[in-house]
Amino acid sequence: VPERGVSAIVLAAGRGKRLGAGGNKAFVSLLGRPLLSYALAAFSRSRQVDEVLLVVARGEEEEAREVAKGMARVVAGGERRQDSALAGVEASRGRIVLVHDAARPFPSEALLRRVIEGTLEHQACVPVVDITDTLRYREAGGTLRPGTIDREGLLRMQTPQGFERDLYWRHLREAKGALLDDAEAVLSCGVPIATVPGEAMNLKVTTQDDLALAEVIARGLGDLCPPAEPRLE
Amino acid sequence: VPERGVSAIVLAAGRGKRLGAGGNKAFVSLLGRPLLSYALAAFSRSRQVDEVLLVVARGEEEEAREVAKGMARVVAGGERRQDSALAGVEASRGRIVLVHDAARPFPSEALLRRVIEGTLEHQACVPVVDITDTLRYREAGGTLRPGTIDREGLLRMQTPQGFERDLYWRHLREAKGALLDDAEAVLSCGVPIATVPGEAMNLKVTTQDDLALAEVIARGLGDLCPPAEPRLE
Repeated sequence: VPERGVSAIVLAAGRGKRLGAGGNKAFVSLLGRPLLSYALAAFSRSRQVDEVLLVVARGEEEEAREVAKGMARVVAGGERRQDSALAGVEASRGRIVLVHDAARPFPSEALLRRVIEGTLEHQACVPVVDITDTLRYREAGGTLRPGTIDREGLLRMQTPQGFERDLYWRHLREAKGALLDDAEAVLSCGVPIATVPGEAMNLKVTTQDDLALAEVIARGLGDLCPPAEPRLE
Repeated sequence: VPERGVSAIVLAAGRGKRLGAGGNKAFVSLLGRPLLSYALAAFSRSRQVDEVLLVVARGEEEEAREVAKGMARVVAGGERRQDSALAGVEASRGRIVLVHDAARPFPSEALLRRVIEGTLEHQACVPVVDITDTLRYREAGGTLRPGTIDREGLLRMQTPQGFERDLYWRHLREAKGALLDDAEAVLSCGVPIATVPGEAMNLKVTTQDDLALAEVIARGLGDLCPPAEPRLE
């Protein structure tokens, strides 16, 4: 890994109860391959990324090594998401880290470029998409609460989220309480985080319904979908 | 149309500036076919739907008739979305109306079933999806505002939104000011609106980036994607 290199940290230590998988949702099958292998393949094949780390729950390292073979180094994570992120950061060597959710199988090369460039310029950079649907809250009975949410300027956070490694490491270590996402450790310390356009294709697979869409996308991408092949060194 | 029938009203009178099409985004090409033809085909082929109406801006009726041939009747809309919805409702004959955004090309048969059943039972029913991404507001400079939005119970509205025709017609006529979506006319009058699960596949095409995803989906669906063929009567 070059001194000014880029390390991708793929977080797969979550439980994913909504996928009904019982186990780790990152290992759910997507067209016959583990979900997490798509993100690993995307980073592993990218010339913009110098090393890939896969963070999994303790006890899942062996299964993970099987999937990550030739694509990523496996690191044991911690209790909370931020503990896993910290384990990944401490095992990484790049000047920049890209922290990615293993449940997002289709990060594009163009997306990685925007996040890396944004991070080089601003220290911290997150891909975001506008909300174009009308938003409402659900009432207790399942009906809609009257009134909508102001969606002007409202953004959905995606990953990979890019950070200067040292800055991120410092703020992760200092973080108190449970963080919602990787940006929060940095934001809550007052560091401004830049935004770049995310992509509709870069969806997070959380439910069976998302998985059905991801399968249609993987089929539609065909050869454009990175195969889970060892990286050529 | 049977007395207890179902009328689908596809709204395509919007401008869609974000697609940079200059004209009506509903006519943008999706794999060589006008975007709106996908929704028309889905409703037209469904055995759950008794008639399909396509509402377009004045002046676009001829172009619309060309696309809708054998699938839908064309109706001229009004200034605002609710004026177009009203024009569609007044031209419809079913006991239930399904009001759908022409920019959502992939409503499934299962989705239509849930919305129709929900409407029969509750008079008004909207398909919704949970928000699983972290949400933040954008600051003026393009950076992220610290703090996240409470996403517990927060829902994204989809279409088709189902209503008892007479109830909807009454509330649309009484509506004051511009409505954000079809549910608002009814909600603001205190009528509870039921929710049923929407689908990740049922995306709204608003930007070029959404269009790219819709093309991958259309390719991935292959033969499952309804062709724009005249309905067999």
